[in-house]
Amino acid sequence: MDTKDKAKFPQVVIVGGGFGGLQVASKLADKPVDVLLLDRHNYHTFQPLLYQVATGSLEAESIAFSIRKNFAGQKNFRFNIAEVTRVNAEKNTIDTSIGEIAYDYLVIATGSTTNFFGNKDIEKFSMPMKSIPEALNLRYLILQNLEDATLKATKAEKEPLLSFVLVGAGPTGVELAGALAEIRNHILCKDYPELKKEDMKVYLVDFLPKVLGPFSDEASKKAYEFLTNMGVEVLLNVKVESYDGNEIKFEGGKTIRSKNVIWSAGVMGEIPEGVNKEVIVRGNKIKTDDHCRMAGSPAIFAIGDVAAMITDETPKGHPGVAQVAIQMGKYVAETIIQTINGEATKPFKYFDKGSLATIGRNKAVADLGKVKFQGFFAWMIWMFVHLISLLGFRNKLHVFINWIGSYISFNGGSRLIIRQFKKETLASKTEQVAIPD
Amino acid sequence: MDTKDKAKFPQVVIVGGGFGGLQVASKLADKPVDVLLLDRHNYHTFQPLLYQVATGSLEAESIAFSIRKNFAGQKNFRFNIAEVTRVNAEKNTIDTSIGEIAYDYLVIATGSTTNFFGNKDIEKFSMPMKSIPEALNLRYLILQNLEDATLKATKAEKEPLLSFVLVGAGPTGVELAGALAEIRNHILCKDYPELKKEDMKVYLVDFLPKVLGPFSDEASKKAYEFLTNMGVEVLLNVKVESYDGNEIKFEGGKTIRSKNVIWSAGVMGEIPEGVNKEVIVRGNKIKTDDHCRMAGSPAIFAIGDVAAMITDETPKGHPGVAQVAIQMGKYVAETIIQTINGEATKPFKYFDKGSLATIGRNKAVADLGKVKFQGFFAWMIWMFVHLISLLGFRNKLHVFINWIGSYISFNGGSRLIIRQFKKETLASKTEQVAIPD
Repeated sequence: MDTKDKAKFPQVVIVGGGFGGLQVASKLADKPVDVLLLDRHNYHTFQPLLYQVATGSLEAESIAFSIRKNFAGQKNFRFNIAEVTRVNAEKNTIDTSIGEIAYDYLVIATGSTTNFFGNKDIEKFSMPMKSIPEALNLRYLILQNLEDATLKATKAEKEPLLSFVLVGAGPTGVELAGALAEIRNHILCKDYPELKKEDMKVYLVDFLPKVLGPFSDEASKKAYEFLTNMGVEVLLNVKVESYDGNEIKFEGGKTIRSKNVIWSAGVMGEIPEGVNKEVIVRGNKIKTDDHCRMAGSPAIFAIGDVAAMITDETPKGHPGVAQVAIQMGKYVAETIIQTINGEATKPFKYFDKGSLATIGRNKAVADLGKVKFQGFFAWMIWMFVHLISLLGFRNKLHVFINWIGSYISFNGGSRLIIRQFKKETLASKTEQVAIPD
Repeated sequence: MDTKDKAKFPQVVIVGGGFGGLQVASKLADKPVDVLLLDRHNYHTFQPLLYQVATGSLEAESIAFSIRKNFAGQKNFRFNIAEVTRVNAEKNTIDTSIGEIAYDYLVIATGSTTNFFGNKDIEKFSMPMKSIPEALNLRYLILQNLEDATLKATKAEKEPLLSFVLVGAGPTGVELAGALAEIRNHILCKDYPELKKEDMKVYLVDFLPKVLGPFSDEASKKAYEFLTNMGVEVLLNVKVESYDGNEIKFEGGKTIRSKNVIWSAGVMGEIPEGVNKEVIVRGNKIKTDDHCRMAGSPAIFAIGDVAAMITDETPKGHPGVAQVAIQMGKYVAETIIQTINGEATKPFKYFDKGSLATIGRNKAVADLGKVKFQGFFAWMIWMFVHLISLLGFRNKLHVFINWIGSYISFNGGSRLIIRQFKKETLASKTEQVAIPD
């Protein structure tokens, strides 16, 4: 950093360019602070549509947006690609891959990552889907296994390649199951005349007795009905015991031969080193007060998936959804400015706008407070909400056109294997690197 | 292969899904042959727009098209991803990564790859751009170096990161130079307020005395003028001596400090093993007769960039452009059917439709026979020709929208670093693999 970068205004450092982090930065525009946003990627990911990237319906770039482009013109904003390695709360600095950085206010908005609950084999062999590189890896694996299946003569040889097991029947698992069922029903025979629709199986597995656990029973039942009608085999009250890359075993003895196990059964907060262990609670989250402040550190805020605001009103914290992160981000920006100005601050209040999940064309479920409905109208609402929430006119337009195209043709998406995905490389999970062709 | 795959019709095996290979396969639709197309990728690449993928103006998926989707419904067509390792002309088979495959007619349409003329250091440290993975690697490298430059305090430290050296002033080099100059002129300061326009340099280097060597002098001169007006430093009559990843040296002593050297100074045919060495000519091409037949092997055809049809009329063969591959592909499909039917065949005749190259917005050059023009109208023609040549309505629409958007905003493209590119990995160039995040 050269000397001209020396802050005249209080320095707000935001770690993470997800829904929460972006909100903090943009709400601090034109305020008397300097904002530095750090992320390991130079783009924001619209996670709710990751499953459409994995299944090839949308291109990665349609649901990602350049952070620099988003903040072009915001004078008090700077961005750098960086990995935060340590929080030094005692001296108000963080250690990062680009050096030590001082802050007056630190916002930890690092989000969550896949939770394999300590099962190393499942971590090694199953596919997570929490980032764009992971969604692309999953896409390439699916397409490669379809290609490989065309080379196999017998049904037994084809079976593990054409069986897709989705563990975790939350919105991600349900949406992915629906999308894979649509590939099976509408695309498989067109693209792969060598394969039969009946040979491809989609399983959705959960240890709970229902799909879409946090939704209303009405939404849950309808989603189950939609899925089974589309040919998804839904296995409830089932716990995974092990997975070796070829066969997944469940408690009670059932097994499925599959080379495609996708793990969306849990998440955990991504906390940088140095955070006081005493404030780390269940789900690897940072416990905060009702002002999003990390317990014992008034200059450090935690928001979104990495935060657990445990109060009398919210004894389990808030759900891990975009709306919580967005509202906390907005709140923290306001609270920082009020604090600087010596004004009174109010505690955070979450306004629940409701929940939506889509299963397939014309099929979605909506729980909007007391109003619950399912089917075509819920699906229209789902599309509208996701379209307007996407950053950037270009992204909105691309997604809109792709959806229209897919709706008309039953054959959207590109399904290209741009990079070969090799399971063996899972052993060295440290980073994503592009190797020349 | 199971027994039902046993061919009743003559088996035509096409190696390579480029412009030529696709043309052969589609012109054989509804003919009394079985067609098997092999490619190492499951998509066709529209190479003329690769440079826009490298500079982030277009997404990879906009200029690639699924081969399976393209041929969905063509009854006599099959496709497999495969690497051809050997041609066994004596027994009419090829060895491939998916086993030995018999043919009645073999069409080698494997195209060309970058020619580093045996210089191992240049091969190791400079960036080629002949495939989509390579274009993406180049994009990520450019963006990473811009990011790195924002962290450097001095001009001297920034220099190698912000100097772009394009070796080879053919259409690829010229188009890339123009696109980089536009990033410098219109995007750099918006996205990277830490950087100055003057700190970024774009050099275009060639050992010939002119840019766009094969074009008319009129086109050549105008392209030179366009480039220099946009701020590109064009260095002609200059030969590269060495490049070590940090500094490129030219004969005569001039050097440029650059971590971005892009090599488009030559191509060579990609010939599978087993092809009779005696028919391999200059540029690693397969010598054919005027029927595109490999000398001495009437059942083997070679077309496009990998072929050299050396006759009295074309003593140097044909230029390495898409039109040659397309016309040869169409011709070979007709010739195979005529041969099967015992009909007379005619020699191949190339119809030169002319040449186009674009330099930047409103700036292109066109040599259409005796009609030569440059500027806005040439640029409109260039866009029109490229749009209609793209496979698939969806791709046409995406590219069209992106171009309109970029034209209006001066700020198109997404510029995301989806996969980190590491120069060190260039040492193991064997394949492109996606490693999990």
